[in-house]
Amino acid sequence: MTDKTTGSPWTLAHRAARMNPSIIREILKVTEQPGVLSMAGGLPSPDTFPIEAMREASAKVLTDSPREALQYAASEGYGPLREWVAATLNAQGQQVTPDRVLITTGSQQALDLIAKVLVDAGAPVAVETPTYLGALQAFAPFEPLFTSVASDDQGPIPDAIRALPHDAPGTRFLYVLPNFQNPTGRVMGEARRQAVVAAAQAARVPLVEDNPYGDLWFDQAPAAPLAARWPEGTVYMGSFSKVLAPGLRLGYVVSPAALTPKLLQAKQAADLHTPSFNQRMVFEVIRNGFLDQHIPTIRARYKTQRDTMAQALTEHMPAGTEWAAPQGGMFFWLRLPAGCNAMALLPKAVAAGVAFVPGEPFYAHAPDTRTMRLSFVTLTPDEIRYAVATLGGVLKKHLFEDLAQETP
Amino acid sequence: MTDKTTGSPWTLAHRAARMNPSIIREILKVTEQPGVLSMAGGLPSPDTFPIEAMREASAKVLTDSPREALQYAASEGYGPLREWVAATLNAQGQQVTPDRVLITTGSQQALDLIAKVLVDAGAPVAVETPTYLGALQAFAPFEPLFTSVASDDQGPIPDAIRALPHDAPGTRFLYVLPNFQNPTGRVMGEARRQAVVAAAQAARVPLVEDNPYGDLWFDQAPAAPLAARWPEGTVYMGSFSKVLAPGLRLGYVVSPAALTPKLLQAKQAADLHTPSFNQRMVFEVIRNGFLDQHIPTIRARYKTQRDTMAQALTEHMPAGTEWAAPQGGMFFWLRLPAGCNAMALLPKAVAAGVAFVPGEPFYAHAPDTRTMRLSFVTLTPDEIRYAVATLGGVLKKHLFEDLAQETP
Repeated sequence: MTDKTTGSPWTLAHRAARMNPSIIREILKVTEQPGVLSMAGGLPSPDTFPIEAMREASAKVLTDSPREALQYAASEGYGPLREWVAATLNAQGQQVTPDRVLITTGSQQALDLIAKVLVDAGAPVAVETPTYLGALQAFAPFEPLFTSVASDDQGPIPDAIRALPHDAPGTRFLYVLPNFQNPTGRVMGEARRQAVVAAAQAARVPLVEDNPYGDLWFDQAPAAPLAARWPEGTVYMGSFSKVLAPGLRLGYVVSPAALTPKLLQAKQAADLHTPSFNQRMVFEVIRNGFLDQHIPTIRARYKTQRDTMAQALTEHMPAGTEWAAPQGGMFFWLRLPAGCNAMALLPKAVAAGVAFVPGEPFYAHAPDTRTMRLSFVTLTPDEIRYAVATLGGVLKKHLFEDLAQETP
Repeated sequence: MTDKTTGSPWTLAHRAARMNPSIIREILKVTEQPGVLSMAGGLPSPDTFPIEAMREASAKVLTDSPREALQYAASEGYGPLREWVAATLNAQGQQVTPDRVLITTGSQQALDLIAKVLVDAGAPVAVETPTYLGALQAFAPFEPLFTSVASDDQGPIPDAIRALPHDAPGTRFLYVLPNFQNPTGRVMGEARRQAVVAAAQAARVPLVEDNPYGDLWFDQAPAAPLAARWPEGTVYMGSFSKVLAPGLRLGYVVSPAALTPKLLQAKQAADLHTPSFNQRMVFEVIRNGFLDQHIPTIRARYKTQRDTMAQALTEHMPAGTEWAAPQGGMFFWLRLPAGCNAMALLPKAVAAGVAFVPGEPFYAHAPDTRTMRLSFVTLTPDEIRYAVATLGGVLKKHLFEDLAQETP
């Protein structure tokens, strides 16, 4: 691929062809215009950031242990934070030892490290339908062959997991987000969890379980994680981005002993270690049970917003629009009436002052172009009502005027 | 590689065989014993960390812009910091626009991203002899074929660059560390820089220039970077680790326009973005010329330590030991007398209460087993004198007693 014409001396790696500008990023650029009420983002509400606690923790760390916080540190992560993670996960039903916890620079990095350690070019990697776009982006440079596992309102369908190819080259893993999935908001019930794990074990397809939203339940905590049911066959990922703040880039990955050394070596090669200052600061914030008080305030806030959006959708969406109110997390997932295309609708919505993310980019294959994702966490209830009413109006006009005119 | 015996469902990627425990890490474990004076580390002195400035900056960021500092942010990095980097590099002779500056999670991450974008399995990648071990570790998982370019006390020899294979598959790049290289401490003079760039251009081998130590000169600033001489053929990397603090994990990579989008996409997939809080905090520290006052204090401190170690080596090393006093940076590079093996000497040194890093791991091929790296920046002058005297004693005993006994 050396360009002989311009004389560029660079040759790109083959995998670079699998790196592409994020469609969502491009969409967000369009939607980030003054005056647009955006339901497009994937950001937590900054109103939930515990700023005062962060300020105190940061000052304390830079007073009590500045030299350690500012120096190079172990690639595994800060010991007390790893212990905290293990203890917290064990209280939720896992059996984790701190030596299997690796602190990562956001859970996005865990996706990168997992793919680096497990994915060869051409090897099958299974994902939900639809799935988290950032995972597709993290895995893609390692050139997997994506398999989209048929999924319903609880996630992947067990029979579809059983049908995955598990002989050579073998599906390297199934990536699942059981709690309030991004983008669909769906949650996997207890029976489905049991069936998914049984199917994965039968198919000898290990699991990569991503859980950034699990703490953000509204009425009822989700069932025990898949990792608690098949620890040696599951890599589990968590994050502080949704319960504290994403700008610190702090996540973790818990792996079976068979994988821990390789993930650690990949981590060391990738960035030596996650900033020691950030790890100590977050540990200082959470060490004395802060999250037990803090997370319920996020739940209450997001639940109110969820309720507001649910009611507004019922009031304003035209017949034929489908959705289910999420039981936690940050997103509604809508399916528009037949004939609609969410991507085509977007410019009209932005022109009217509201934005959403079309569902298309979240599919590894065969996107359902009628889908869209709406975040309910960064707008106030009044803004949500106004934004949904506006979107409903745009959609009705699209359906009953624009599409009608196009029909001969 | 699925283990049918134990029933593990995991299959490692082929590249995982190229990930290994860091030898240095293992060595450091041995050397980090109570009472051992270590010249083995690659850490800057924590006495140089501007703790008070960090504390003020952190408080200011969390007061003035907490929501931005704690929220998700752009993958490219914080705009004002990118502008600062461009302006600073331009003052040193480069011509950089902020849009080509990508902020990374330490410059280690830049090595990972560069390899991800440029290295195919089996493609040649050229390195100095010896070279920075962390670069070998970052590149190795992408399965390059390393070529060790013959090097002397100024770095790679131009004729050896000219001899690199540049037809298909072609050398993807030559990785060079022109200023006070880790591990050798050597610096490339003006004439050599010109010759290296001319040879690289003739061979159509682009350059990856790593510059973590360039500001740490003692008497004279190093000549203009290679990137200033061949901007379209050089990727340039810098870091805040040695002039501020490594624990914040803040580095940057400046790339020719042909590579910038791919590096950005790789960055986004790797960890979304470098912590916004850290970027804003560092920018707050440096925005008003802080480094102009701060860096000279580091230079003065390290120069005194360099002088102390140079004198101690002259006093205590046996005849036949070779070294050159470094003109900047953090390391002396020693070559022991014939018959010595630095790795074999290490346990004896540790038993006597001093530690160093053997040179072996820094070679991609054919290590010179007589070499060792000594850091002079984390010990006090008194400790340096004592440590070098002790090392000299161990070496003399090794040479004149142990080795003599082994000789029949």
